[in-house]
Amino acid sequence: MNSNITQEQLLQAKETLTNLVHKTPVLSSEVIDKKVGADLYFKCENFQKTGSFKFRGASYAVSRLGSDQKKNGVTTHSSGNHGQALAKAAQLAGIRAYIVMPENAPTVKKQAVKGYGAEVIICESTQAAREKTCRDIQEKTGATFTPPYDHENIVIGQSTASQELFEQTDNLDYLLAPVGGGGLLSGALLAAKFFSPTTKVIGSEPLGADDAYRSIKAGKRLPQENPQTIADGLRTSLGEINFEIISENIDQILTAKEDTIIEALKMMHHHLKIMAEPSCALPLATILENKSMFEGKKVGIIISGGNVDLDVYYESLK
Amino acid sequence: MNSNITQEQLLQAKETLTNLVHKTPVLSSEVIDKKVGADLYFKCENFQKTGSFKFRGASYAVSRLGSDQKKNGVTTHSSGNHGQALAKAAQLAGIRAYIVMPENAPTVKKQAVKGYGAEVIICESTQAAREKTCRDIQEKTGATFTPPYDHENIVIGQSTASQELFEQTDNLDYLLAPVGGGGLLSGALLAAKFFSPTTKVIGSEPLGADDAYRSIKAGKRLPQENPQTIADGLRTSLGEINFEIISENIDQILTAKEDTIIEALKMMHHHLKIMAEPSCALPLATILENKSMFEGKKVGIIISGGNVDLDVYYESLK
Repeated sequence: MNSNITQEQLLQAKETLTNLVHKTPVLSSEVIDKKVGADLYFKCENFQKTGSFKFRGASYAVSRLGSDQKKNGVTTHSSGNHGQALAKAAQLAGIRAYIVMPENAPTVKKQAVKGYGAEVIICESTQAAREKTCRDIQEKTGATFTPPYDHENIVIGQSTASQELFEQTDNLDYLLAPVGGGGLLSGALLAAKFFSPTTKVIGSEPLGADDAYRSIKAGKRLPQENPQTIADGLRTSLGEINFEIISENIDQILTAKEDTIIEALKMMHHHLKIMAEPSCALPLATILENKSMFEGKKVGIIISGGNVDLDVYYESLK
Repeated sequence: MNSNITQEQLLQAKETLTNLVHKTPVLSSEVIDKKVGADLYFKCENFQKTGSFKFRGASYAVSRLGSDQKKNGVTTHSSGNHGQALAKAAQLAGIRAYIVMPENAPTVKKQAVKGYGAEVIICESTQAAREKTCRDIQEKTGATFTPPYDHENIVIGQSTASQELFEQTDNLDYLLAPVGGGGLLSGALLAAKFFSPTTKVIGSEPLGADDAYRSIKAGKRLPQENPQTIADGLRTSLGEINFEIISENIDQILTAKEDTIIEALKMMHHHLKIMAEPSCALPLATILENKSMFEGKKVGIIISGGNVDLDVYYESLK
């Protein structure tokens, strides 16, 4: 596979999503800036519809379906943000969504997906069971499988978060995004390539789930086995198209230790006054561990989502 | 005393504060809108500098000091947001601030005030001790006393939050603000009077601290004794100038029960993804208790602040 995503495709996605997505605000904190010695601009996708940037990719993927595909709806397997995003995107497009969720997914997430009008199909909590259940649904219903990150239209949709951030700021020296499957980061890389080529894009990853760092170094995809991190959204392995775009365009992948991730999450809690998932703390955490690199620079940061369980949030911050 | 605050004064404050305050974003949630049956626009002053709208009033009050007054600095007594706001406003103006704080104020708040460069003076935690300590400081230093709400310049400063909200939205049917001392609400009333006269302004108050409701009904200021509410920012009594402006201009004061306040706080937590003080939940809580009144309407809501203690926040939401 070769990624030939064009500037025109990115612009078209921006146009398509204009009236579908929230144009999320950019926040900053003088206290945090003083502590790190840089000017940080936080693009708050936790305020996006369904609580994360995933709504952008899902909406764009749905918008690109042909009329025959639309008749049969969409399906995916997800215990997290992509399931909610796809359910809502399908609802707005007036098409069916079948979301496969593992039996151990939190009740509140299952309810959220149902609340967006999707059909929830419960399966065993193994990757094999999730994939098989999803294939069965495709066969039975003809629904189009819509993956969480490893798809061109998903990446193009996610790029709109960074496109907006470039419009909302001037001359960013750096743009940092957390990297799990790599949808957000590959979208950021394409947005920078076409709309802000002097901005260096960096992926931020937990040291305990550093498959992107290792994969880029090795020049091939290395899976993430046994991830050890509080940042649950980043425990997954890099996707194929995502690896390709990242390895072609990335400036650097930086990792952060768990203690620093928690320190960064606390700083965001105290000074930005937002609910942010632990995964969102990665960019700030990697800045804290590499202060001299960012000193005096203008740095954009994508806050990926805000769907936190209060108990988990409390445990991680107290 | 008679309130003769003019449109020109409000415009001047807006101009003065343009480069000092954050122009805070307005958030909305389709899920909340669907639940209440109205279009709600949340003006997020929890993202304001020092974490609350209080920074607007404090900054404007400091900007209006004469050069002789500036030499001697400012003072106030506060266990909460006004102390931080005045400390930061004084720091930016390059003048001294003496903040009297009760001995039982949380360490984190004392540290925040010190962090803004102010001198913290600890006293007993009675109103009498706070006032006496503050008077002593005025005598000793010549510092100008800057009260949290009962002052024309404070009210004019707070009006800029509502002025901004009117610019960021179109044709609001209602504007709701929580009411404690009345600074935010009287500022909202003046902003509506001059810039959006068709918008009805409503004060939202806990049933367990309903002195504004009772005062407006009685036609005179009735003190709040023994307040019983989780909304700690609203336990105080209405100020004199605030009562005057409110009774002249208010459409209605609505109250909400504690259970509804907590329900509203949970909705804001889950769907707006923001850290908001319990006091911020009052407007939404009063809407929940008076749904038919707001059905199909466009409603602006001022989120007053986000300086929450995580333990308290967790206890109130779990």
